[in-house]
Amino acid sequence: MVASRAVGYPVNLDFNYDALGHLQQFSINNAGDPFIAGNYGVHSRDFEVGVLDWFARLWEIKKDEYWGYVTSGGTEGNLHGLLVGREMFPDGILYVSKEAHYSVFKAARMYRMNCVKVETLASGVIDCRDLKDCLLKNKDKPAIINISIGTTVKGAIDDIDLVVQTLEECGFPRNRFYIHCDAALFGLMLPFLDRAPHITFKKPIDSVCVSGHKFVGSPMPCGVQMVRIEHINVLSRNVEYIATMDTTIMGSRNGLAPVYLWYALNRKGYNGLKKQVQNCLIIASYLKDRLRGAGVSVMLNELSSTVVFERPQDEEFIRYWQLSCQENIAHIVVMPNMTKKTLDTFLDELVEKRSIRFKDGKNQPPCVASDIGKENCVCPLHI
Amino acid sequence: MVASRAVGYPVNLDFNYDALGHLQQFSINNAGDPFIAGNYGVHSRDFEVGVLDWFARLWEIKKDEYWGYVTSGGTEGNLHGLLVGREMFPDGILYVSKEAHYSVFKAARMYRMNCVKVETLASGVIDCRDLKDCLLKNKDKPAIINISIGTTVKGAIDDIDLVVQTLEECGFPRNRFYIHCDAALFGLMLPFLDRAPHITFKKPIDSVCVSGHKFVGSPMPCGVQMVRIEHINVLSRNVEYIATMDTTIMGSRNGLAPVYLWYALNRKGYNGLKKQVQNCLIIASYLKDRLRGAGVSVMLNELSSTVVFERPQDEEFIRYWQLSCQENIAHIVVMPNMTKKTLDTFLDELVEKRSIRFKDGKNQPPCVASDIGKENCVCPLHI
Repeated sequence: MVASRAVGYPVNLDFNYDALGHLQQFSINNAGDPFIAGNYGVHSRDFEVGVLDWFARLWEIKKDEYWGYVTSGGTEGNLHGLLVGREMFPDGILYVSKEAHYSVFKAARMYRMNCVKVETLASGVIDCRDLKDCLLKNKDKPAIINISIGTTVKGAIDDIDLVVQTLEECGFPRNRFYIHCDAALFGLMLPFLDRAPHITFKKPIDSVCVSGHKFVGSPMPCGVQMVRIEHINVLSRNVEYIATMDTTIMGSRNGLAPVYLWYALNRKGYNGLKKQVQNCLIIASYLKDRLRGAGVSVMLNELSSTVVFERPQDEEFIRYWQLSCQENIAHIVVMPNMTKKTLDTFLDELVEKRSIRFKDGKNQPPCVASDIGKENCVCPLHI
Repeated sequence: MVASRAVGYPVNLDFNYDALGHLQQFSINNAGDPFIAGNYGVHSRDFEVGVLDWFARLWEIKKDEYWGYVTSGGTEGNLHGLLVGREMFPDGILYVSKEAHYSVFKAARMYRMNCVKVETLASGVIDCRDLKDCLLKNKDKPAIINISIGTTVKGAIDDIDLVVQTLEECGFPRNRFYIHCDAALFGLMLPFLDRAPHITFKKPIDSVCVSGHKFVGSPMPCGVQMVRIEHINVLSRNVEYIATMDTTIMGSRNGLAPVYLWYALNRKGYNGLKKQVQNCLIIASYLKDRLRGAGVSVMLNELSSTVVFERPQDEEFIRYWQLSCQENIAHIVVMPNMTKKTLDTFLDELVEKRSIRFKDGKNQPPCVASDIGKENCVCPLHI
């Protein structure tokens, strides 16, 4: 299978969907709100609501307290969450770390929102000291905060509690902020790690989204977006929104995706997923250790399966392994379908390429201290 | 097949996609711009560009003069086209007929655009006299116009030439307006009708979108969005957009959809599609005649396959046939998978229901003159 080499992308193909193949003979369309029945009969709303209920339990919000839908991917989740935030606070300022997913910046532009880019620490998490400075400069405006539960490049997990504490310290009461959690990558993984901070609606967060084609392994891009129902009610009361009878972004929506999600979640089960998450973290740790052992600058954030390392110098090698790179660094996102054996092959090739490149001392490994911190850099200066 | 009863929705299931069933074992993701290669290897960009080239020929724009992508449906096409329009003219006013698809109004709200609702004629087309009044009131602001090539309810086709003429009469030069054509339903049908006005980029239009799950018959919601390349270049020169490296709305995109579209277009071929379109119009005309013959108020716009008629009074009947209704009217959108036989069954049942309801003269058929015009209404007042 071609995708097994795509180590740079959080794509999971560990699952056999053959049983669902015949569904393509139907044109399954979940148009509009999953909780409002339409006249078009070929839909999978029951599966969709089943998936939503599953995530509601995971993220600790009661059935009658949430609203949500299965999206076409992480981007639509962010577009929806930030739109709800803006509608709640039309003059609110969007605070987002500079390492957040690019769709957040795209949303800010689409929605004509004031957007403040917040600094990050070397790990990739939002720098709450800088967030504090930014918030204090704009105390007169409500705050809309995007929290990354797994940044795109470094898999860094912003600390919800610290962000909330920062808001409190800056004098923002609960009715003056909206928090959207972009949990595209780790929204399904984090809840299965005992020592991880919970993604829970018991905290003062307002919306959460997760991708369905990453850890869950749906064969098509999709995702789940969940928001407190009172916010959607605020939107629905608006006459213009009622006219559309539709609180989603996309209107017509792929009805196959909820079936794939429902099937995967139920076949794997809570314990199966938990085991897979734990295994990913073990393999990620193994990969980090082996890279470090081979003299490669490398970083692995706690509770993360994204291994960040010095960008290989060989473009063909990058293409072959479908590595995702950003300037001096590359990453591998360990997913359930990634085996030690595949990674060993990758490592052997990488080590060989490096030994040729660096053998006569003319070339030196690049410094990546500014990307992943001095402590993780083993360039000649920092070794 | 359940969908064969969904006569109220433009869903086409005339095609056998069994040959593509195995593709679900891959996670095909066309992330971002279809013309910019990414590192992720499991994509269907070649099919996507093939589909785009096909539509470029249909809509008469050269390969090197267009940019486009396969969307998740008609809504994403409208969201993209109107966003490009707004970015071209940040202070532009959006003019849209009140019978346009609701996603246009949703876009206006999302994008914080000034939106002027233009009146329609009884047929459902934009009233260019009202458009003129509206334009003249706002001559100081550029105009962003949404043209419906097939309105949702009545299948009405706005007249591009008349809209352009109205703009000229109001003193809007070419560099002061942007025209987006929402051709979700008829973008693929109209070009196959000899006497139909062309959807062509030789006219001063800027973007066109069409749905892929309607006439083409993709089993999942999708669509095609096409825009003049110079507009995308304007966007791309913007630093913030370059930062995202992505001029689509959705980012991660379903890579199966372009394969389905490519397969359907190439298997059916130009002549096959032409025959299907002509057949749809013949059947729509048959349906209209039979309804009129049965004493039902009915309207069928020229070049349209959407038959609009008096809303049946029986909710169970509406649900069974999955009719799409709006206030006093219902419609049937004749698609290639809809047979005379199915429609005969529908008609027989409808006639029977009506004969029972109206037999003793206590109930009267409703007046729908304000919906579809006096000349199409056969209520006791207008008969």
